[in-house]
Amino acid sequence: MAKTTPLIVHPVTALDPRSTQALHVQVYERLRMAVLSGLLKGGARLPSTRALANELRVSRTPVLAAYEQLAAEGYVESRVGAGTRVVAEMPEHLLNAGPAGVTAHVRQARDEKRAIAARGNVMAREKFGPELRIGQRSWRTAFRVAVPALEEFPFEIWSRLVSRHLRRPRQEILDYHGAAGLERLRRAIAAHLSVSRGIRCSSDQILIVAGAQSGIDLSARVLLDPGDTALVENPGHLGIYGALRGAGVKIASVAIDREGFAISGRSNFGRNARVAFVTPSNQFPLAVTMSLPRRLALLDWAQSNGAWIVEDDYDSEFRFSGRPIEALRALDRGDRVLYIGSFSKVLYPGLRLGYMVVPADLVDAFAAARRFIDVHPPLLPQAALTDFIEEGHFGRHLRRMRMIYAERAQALSEAFDRHLSGALSIAQPQAGMHTVAWITGKLSDRSVSEAAAREGVEARPLSVYSLGRSKPGLVLGFGNVMPREITEGARKLARALDRIRHH
Amino acid sequence: MAKTTPLIVHPVTALDPRSTQALHVQVYERLRMAVLSGLLKGGARLPSTRALANELRVSRTPVLAAYEQLAAEGYVESRVGAGTRVVAEMPEHLLNAGPAGVTAHVRQARDEKRAIAARGNVMAREKFGPELRIGQRSWRTAFRVAVPALEEFPFEIWSRLVSRHLRRPRQEILDYHGAAGLERLRRAIAAHLSVSRGIRCSSDQILIVAGAQSGIDLSARVLLDPGDTALVENPGHLGIYGALRGAGVKIASVAIDREGFAISGRSNFGRNARVAFVTPSNQFPLAVTMSLPRRLALLDWAQSNGAWIVEDDYDSEFRFSGRPIEALRALDRGDRVLYIGSFSKVLYPGLRLGYMVVPADLVDAFAAARRFIDVHPPLLPQAALTDFIEEGHFGRHLRRMRMIYAERAQALSEAFDRHLSGALSIAQPQAGMHTVAWITGKLSDRSVSEAAAREGVEARPLSVYSLGRSKPGLVLGFGNVMPREITEGARKLARALDRIRHH
Repeated sequence: MAKTTPLIVHPVTALDPRSTQALHVQVYERLRMAVLSGLLKGGARLPSTRALANELRVSRTPVLAAYEQLAAEGYVESRVGAGTRVVAEMPEHLLNAGPAGVTAHVRQARDEKRAIAARGNVMAREKFGPELRIGQRSWRTAFRVAVPALEEFPFEIWSRLVSRHLRRPRQEILDYHGAAGLERLRRAIAAHLSVSRGIRCSSDQILIVAGAQSGIDLSARVLLDPGDTALVENPGHLGIYGALRGAGVKIASVAIDREGFAISGRSNFGRNARVAFVTPSNQFPLAVTMSLPRRLALLDWAQSNGAWIVEDDYDSEFRFSGRPIEALRALDRGDRVLYIGSFSKVLYPGLRLGYMVVPADLVDAFAAARRFIDVHPPLLPQAALTDFIEEGHFGRHLRRMRMIYAERAQALSEAFDRHLSGALSIAQPQAGMHTVAWITGKLSDRSVSEAAAREGVEARPLSVYSLGRSKPGLVLGFGNVMPREITEGARKLARALDRIRHH
Repeated sequence: MAKTTPLIVHPVTALDPRSTQALHVQVYERLRMAVLSGLLKGGARLPSTRALANELRVSRTPVLAAYEQLAAEGYVESRVGAGTRVVAEMPEHLLNAGPAGVTAHVRQARDEKRAIAARGNVMAREKFGPELRIGQRSWRTAFRVAVPALEEFPFEIWSRLVSRHLRRPRQEILDYHGAAGLERLRRAIAAHLSVSRGIRCSSDQILIVAGAQSGIDLSARVLLDPGDTALVENPGHLGIYGALRGAGVKIASVAIDREGFAISGRSNFGRNARVAFVTPSNQFPLAVTMSLPRRLALLDWAQSNGAWIVEDDYDSEFRFSGRPIEALRALDRGDRVLYIGSFSKVLYPGLRLGYMVVPADLVDAFAAARRFIDVHPPLLPQAALTDFIEEGHFGRHLRRMRMIYAERAQALSEAFDRHLSGALSIAQPQAGMHTVAWITGKLSDRSVSEAAAREGVEARPLSVYSLGRSKPGLVLGFGNVMPREITEGARKLARALDRIRHH
């Protein structure tokens, strides 16, 4: 099928029967606007006059007249056998004739009171940029955060599984579905969690969501009312701050030290908070693992305050060494923990799939909220993912990736020892795909980050993730960076630090 | 790849190094719980002891001991060459030994104060069942609502387009992405709307969302604060009611008459409302088209009150006869209309894709809110959909489907004339894939619906969609029902009415 034109003609035509404009003028005006606004680009092919007339339910006469007018004015050109196309180079005088109506329209509208909701403005002001300011550089740039080793994903297998479901599609993937997601996938995840994370739950307690962020948003809306308070990690994940503030929730921040979330068991702190949002397996962004005493203190806090804990376990699958510590949800005797898992790091971010485990008595409320957000998650990727897990590809992929990330973590540690030992202090990563380098001396992390960017290295300032002041540091990802680029990145970073120090 | 077991072994083991339990007891307990809770079903194969030991990072000795214990107690059985499997029939005494810990756990938890948010409870109480109570009957049952003719969708083409993007995946579909969605798709949609609906917008004003519901939820959160008032249609779409109430918004209902949304231009009505949610092209559920005077009155209301209009144009692509009326967004001189389109009806519901057109000055706030809900929509279906549109499949599919729905609408009209003319009064559908049959006489629509269900016919009571009292009616879908089944469904419905009248 030849790729000719983005112009689609639609059965419901927009020609206006009440208009005083003749039909051919209306057709002409619509096409002209499409060209001038850039919607129909230079070289784009217009539909045949017969097809367009058919669509617009008019005779060919007004369509032919419109095409002729457009050609006469220089917007389009027709060639025998090649149809009618938008001219490649638009003459200046036509460009200046631009869509003035549209512009005036917007200008007028801007001048009036155009209020949106306070919470809409709150979200618009929240930062979540670093995760999303992408595409300017290669995705393999050192040291981009939160991207897995995408070239290692078995796309041939994945493509085969997806195609299998599309070629003979069943009702299961086509029709509307319950909000919790495919039962088969929920069962596979429950089995996985039972054996691998010590989390006992029935598949009824699992909801498929659109990545970890979707579980965070859902929790904020179901568990918290406007004006309620939630505990968050500081520094922490900007997606959590934004979702909570957008939900009208007050944030009380808890510092992260060597043992993680610094809450003590029975103090008055956090008495009025209803939920704590934490990343205990591998804190984001500090890459600290929450200690067992802290875990028990946090569970105790939840139990004695009748509060909830949302455990965002976004990359717990990758631990390189040392004894793993059980998930909070697995230690939880009071059934106070909601667990969030993501497939963004173990498969790929563009997939937008994750899951939640919620206490049995909260399942209905979560499913109900999900329905009103977007009815249910897309079904085809869920069906393919179920096969991917059940046929053993998932387990194999995790094992491979753990080795790859361990190797990259080692490369990072060695390269920083060699090239940056005086300027940055880094702990060898034990898990996941990011770590923090502390800046020794008096430089601000923003200035180092900017200097690094000038050398072509992405080194996010830790202060971006902090509520209030923070020690200067850089958050560094190594998931999608090859060992050679890691070493090269460390050299460039050393050069950047050198320049800024001697400037 | 043989499909053996849903048991996945995970690199992060959950064995507890601090536990006083021996390793083999821990392995035994985890597997036993998985069997008793039904996660590992009868016949499921366990991984080899070597693979499990490897995963759990222990020697094979404790794993072998655990397997032997499970076999000795009768949970699993091993056969040479067939590995170890869960027994097909679990002995009664083992079943009764059940996961008592889990049960006691949940029971204890239920007895305590386990409060969720007020808004969480509001959503849990909202009804949205009819759209989702599916799967019990065939999806081809007369007269299921809101399902398109799924067997007519060109899955071979679609599968080819999807596979093309997966076999050589680009960063575009794998990595994180901007919240608005793929630029190429937004451009294709803008071109489509320009020509087919007379809507002039730049691709920057388009956001890809997860179906129409997602656009409704997003609008509620960006445009309305808790305590604000929104105008809604009565009867109307339950997804709108639920999303608004879940967002803490007060609902003011407007009746639907022959001309649609019964608002008059300059009255005091709706003075304190900030947004109106409407389905002007084909009202849901009454299938009325909003008249031009009403459209102008509504636009006038928005302009003079500084309010917004959310135009849910969920199935405007299918109009069978009569002159089409322009979208509100196309008539809107004050830039007050937010337009929502969906691919659930023109492709298939399980896809979960739709789009919004928002005024240029609202784009940033909508994109920001989207980020905190689920970062961005999945990318693979967007890439495939772009090709589907650009290569002309979309236009062809729309043309075919319009003819098919017109045929089914005709079949419905004829069958009801023949079999139900005394009992039900129906207007021949002019558009879309549903209509309303008014019940003559004194029967309640719920009782007729229940009688129909006993005959195997789905006929939703109109009262389900009504705020307060309503005239008794049935909402009938014909999108995925073949003409023969439509006729048969009408006969069964006549029989149901007969029975209930002579009971």
